[in-house]
Amino acid sequence: MALKMDRDELTAFLASHFPQVADDFAVEALSPAEITIRMHVTDKNLRPGGTVSGPSMFSLADVSIYLAVLAMIGPEALAVTTNCSIDFMRKPESGADLIAHARILKLGRALAVGDVMIYSDGNDSPVARAGLTYSIPPAKF
Amino acid sequence: MALKMDRDELTAFLASHFPQVADDFAVEALSPAEITIRMHVTDKNLRPGGTVSGPSMFSLADVSIYLAVLAMIGPEALAVTTNCSIDFMRKPESGADLIAHARILKLGRALAVGDVMIYSDGNDSPVARAGLTYSIPPAKF
Amino acid sequence: MALKMDRDELTAFLASHFPQVADDFAVEALSPAEITIRMHVTDKNLRPGGTVSGPSMFSLADVSIYLAVLAMIGPEALAVTTNCSIDFMRKPESGADLIAHARILKLGRALAVGDVMIYSDGNDSPVARAGLTYSIPPAKF
Amino acid sequence: MALKMDRDELTAFLASHFPQVADDFAVEALSPAEITIRMHVTDKNLRPGGTVSGPSMFSLADVSIYLAVLAMIGPEALAVTTNCSIDFMRKPESGADLIAHARILKLGRALAVGDVMIYSDGNDSPVARAGLTYSIPPAKF
Repeated sequence: MALKMDRDELTAFLASHFPQVADDFAVEALSPAEITIRMHVTDKNLRPGGTVSGPSMFSLADVSIYLAVLAMIGPEALAVTTNCSIDFMRKPESGADLIAHARILKLGRALAVGDVMIYSDGNDSPVARAGLTYSIPPAKF
Repeated sequence: MALKMDRDELTAFLASHFPQVADDFAVEALSPAEITIRMHVTDKNLRPGGTVSGPSMFSLADVSIYLAVLAMIGPEALAVTTNCSIDFMRKPESGADLIAHARILKLGRALAVGDVMIYSDGNDSPVARAGLTYSIPPAKF
Repeated sequence: MALKMDRDELTAFLASHFPQVADDFAVEALSPAEITIRMHVTDKNLRPGGTVSGPSMFSLADVSIYLAVLAMIGPEALAVTTNCSIDFMRKPESGADLIAHARILKLGRALAVGDVMIYSDGNDSPVARAGLTYSIPPAKF
Repeated sequence: MALKMDRDELTAFLASHFPQVADDFAVEALSPAEITIRMHVTDKNLRPGGTVSGPSMFSLADVSIYLAVLAMIGPEALAVTTNCSIDFMRKPESGADLIAHARILKLGRALAVGDVMIYSDGNDSPVARAGLTYSIPPAKF
């Protein structure tokens, strides 16, 4: 399948639709059904001991699959997260960004399913893994 | 089982250990293996259209079970979220706080399992449902 | 909401559409959005030590929500499981049937979400808990 | 990490500990933290229309990660499934075996986490994806 949005279009979409969080994320790589997203970890993402909070990792997983879906179906379509199952496996490193590798496993008319692995930048052992489902509302005419 | 912490102790623990988010949450009710938490919804939790963001709901689910576990095992113990599966079922209402009803289903030596239903304050239809697992590290002597 | 099928109709539907497993299950109670299902535990469900296998518990969770959804939308509609997240919390008792209490949390046009608690018959501590999502295909005209 | 069991040892373990299901599965490939399992699909796995049942796919996911964990920790250790989140994405093909590619993402002292992709033999689009967590009881001395 072909991409309907490129990196610049995804970045612009994020800035205009989600201004509160757009600065936290950067699209590092994009290809059909696959995306890599960097999360700039700042103080607001941290918990005592310097580890990144669970909600921050959830947020990164959600944004990554959302953008991967959007890149395939285009910006006019709305996708809504309906389910996320996330495993937290290791403590993220203090002071490192998080890198998410996400892929779309199914892109149906009504549902999209993807999974994502999250790493501390520069470390090969995943800190979290998630599977997400999005509901894609019928196109409006 | 008896509670090892009461509402005031949970609130104080949250304020001292998680100062960044403590003001967002209030313990509304507490009994053995059950807790009700209110999330004060503010602008930072909102998405376009006034709906509460997914990460905010995840955060509420996580805090609710965490505090319910802590109330049972005491503040010296650390519990770490290992898994969360969350279903987003309806859009939260704009301008309403979120209310989480959480319960502990299993409290073992090494693992605790709980589930939580999240509502917009004043509405009977749940907006989200989650199941969470916590790893309870061995007590240190 | 009203029920579109009663206990006898659900039992007959199971017998005609799923003859391989129909004898394993009995509808114990049914009301709008809630159902109680008994699983007759036999040798084929057991693992060494007399415990009930994980796939058997998954099967019970799946059948329970499926029948609860069907009771609400009627037999002509097809519902397909799209996601299940299941927590196994305790070993089921040897020699006891399993009892599932399931409820529908959301019944939308395209998706139904439910959760289920599974018990060994006669024991109050749940052995498993699951959340399931079903995709409901558009009605055919 | 090194393997503590090879293909023949896993196959023998399955035959002696799970005789009811051992014939359904074959270890196709094994390397540290990765395993490929074939499920021989027979009539008992089928649903009306020739599709493979959900419990059969769950069973394959569970066995695959279980054997991958066992290969790493050895046969004397017992691992118990504590959580499974599975997405059913496409109908398996009628008349084709199922192939599971599983990998261990974390192998801790107390918990192992893995994920698995399931395919109809000969088809590149996954029919299901699952993440599983196993509790590894402390070794007995």
